[in-house]
Amino acid sequence: MPLIEVKMIEGVFTTAKKQEMITRLTDAMVAIEGESFRPYTVVILEEVRSGDWAFGGKSLTTADVHAIAEGKVA
Amino acid sequence: MPLIEVKMIEGVFTTAKKQEMITRLTDAMVAIEGESFRPYTVVILEEVRSGDWAFGGKSLTTADVHAIAEGKVA
Amino acid sequence: MPLIEVKMIEGVFTTAKKQEMITRLTDAMVAIEGESFRPYTVVILEEVRSGDWAFGGKSLTTADVHAIAEGKVA
Amino acid sequence: MPLIEVKMIEGVFTTAKKQEMITRLTDAMVAIEGESFRPYTVVILEEVRSGDWAFGGKSLTTADVHAIAEGKVA
Amino acid sequence: MPLIEVKMIEGVFTTAKKQEMITRLTDAMVAIEGESFRPYTVVILEEVRSGDWAFGGKSLTTADVHAIAEGKVA
Amino acid sequence: MPLIEVKMIEGVFTTAKKQEMITRLTDAMVAIEGESFRPYTVVILEEVRSGDWAFGGKSLTTADVHAIAEGKVA
Repeated sequence: MPLIEVKMIEGVFTTAKKQEMITRLTDAMVAIEGESFRPYTVVILEEVRSGDWAFGGKSLTTADVHAIAEGKVA
Repeated sequence: MPLIEVKMIEGVFTTAKKQEMITRLTDAMVAIEGESFRPYTVVILEEVRSGDWAFGGKSLTTADVHAIAEGKVA
Repeated sequence: MPLIEVKMIEGVFTTAKKQEMITRLTDAMVAIEGESFRPYTVVILEEVRSGDWAFGGKSLTTADVHAIAEGKVA
Repeated sequence: MPLIEVKMIEGVFTTAKKQEMITRLTDAMVAIEGESFRPYTVVILEEVRSGDWAFGGKSLTTADVHAIAEGKVA
Repeated sequence: MPLIEVKMIEGVFTTAKKQEMITRLTDAMVAIEGESFRPYTVVILEEVRSGDWAFGGKSLTTADVHAIAEGKVA
Repeated sequence: MPLIEVKMIEGVFTTAKKQEMITRLTDAMVAIEGESFRPYTVVILEEVRSGDWAFGGKSLTTADVHAIAEGKVA
């Protein structure tokens, strides 16, 4: 405890970035709950297909996400 | 808010059908909660592998789902 | 198949509204997949506590959601 | 009701093992709730990518899981 | 690994039944994956409110579930 | 995108601690993906009942979690 499940669009984060994500999220959680919880802290990353995610009915593709990353989308 | 997560067997719905699913589910939710919630309404579609879904212990494959679609299964 | 899981903040929707939500989401899904899928279509509504939901790090309370509903939040 | 969702790392279980998993989990649940619940018992298996799972910030790969299976990891 | 999440309607299973559920589901999984996976096997039970679950658009209440348990529903 | 869902046992974290959790997890994610993703980053906290969580078939109660927090459990 706790369980941290992260859902994201596929093809956005590299393996190195995902490893960093696991480290940072685990550390963020341990900073709150205390170091004794570290071995109980589970992180699971789940990827969904490009386009299979929407805000307000508008699909986000992997390309859209890269555009957001580059600051091309408000 | 809210978050609508839809799980389905892979290979059943085309990209166009999935886009229509996002639109219809978002519209259905906005019809209840009010138009002001549209930008907060998130839809995520998740596909699982053929066979990795069961009712009453009986697996459903992509082929089974197509058979249901064609009305070949009660 | 499919499974539609909806997460929302508690205390926002009445029992009647939630029943309407189940009906509309089921109908939206059946409109896409075909009537033969109706008995296989599962909807589960899950409520989280007021404040236990955030966009961009900002918590949403039940009161915030009512304010959005009344159009008081952009 | 109920819904049993199982998450695991991809490439660990064969199709035959996953079918056995569905059977055993369904039977375990029916043993508790009663045989009349069998048709309502849903099992969904979901696979995440090798490395996308962590305990205490340490990633588990498909290879790690095979090592555990062989008793090479405490 | 793996993670077994079970969703059910609240007020159906007693604390003792839920403990039995955890034991049986863990044992079922370990029977497949091998005893060395036992410490990695996580079970989480989640309850949703009466009525917040539907098959084919028809809500299931806690009372409906008790009726199924007693064999009063086909 | 992304969605961070955190599951925990109820009664462990105060409202203030949960707000801190939202802030730290959002910041951890934004540190990886870039500031432009902040408004798209969703965090949902979900609490399950005391005892409804198990590692290796052993239930964790709220009391057990407090004992872990105090370093009384290895």
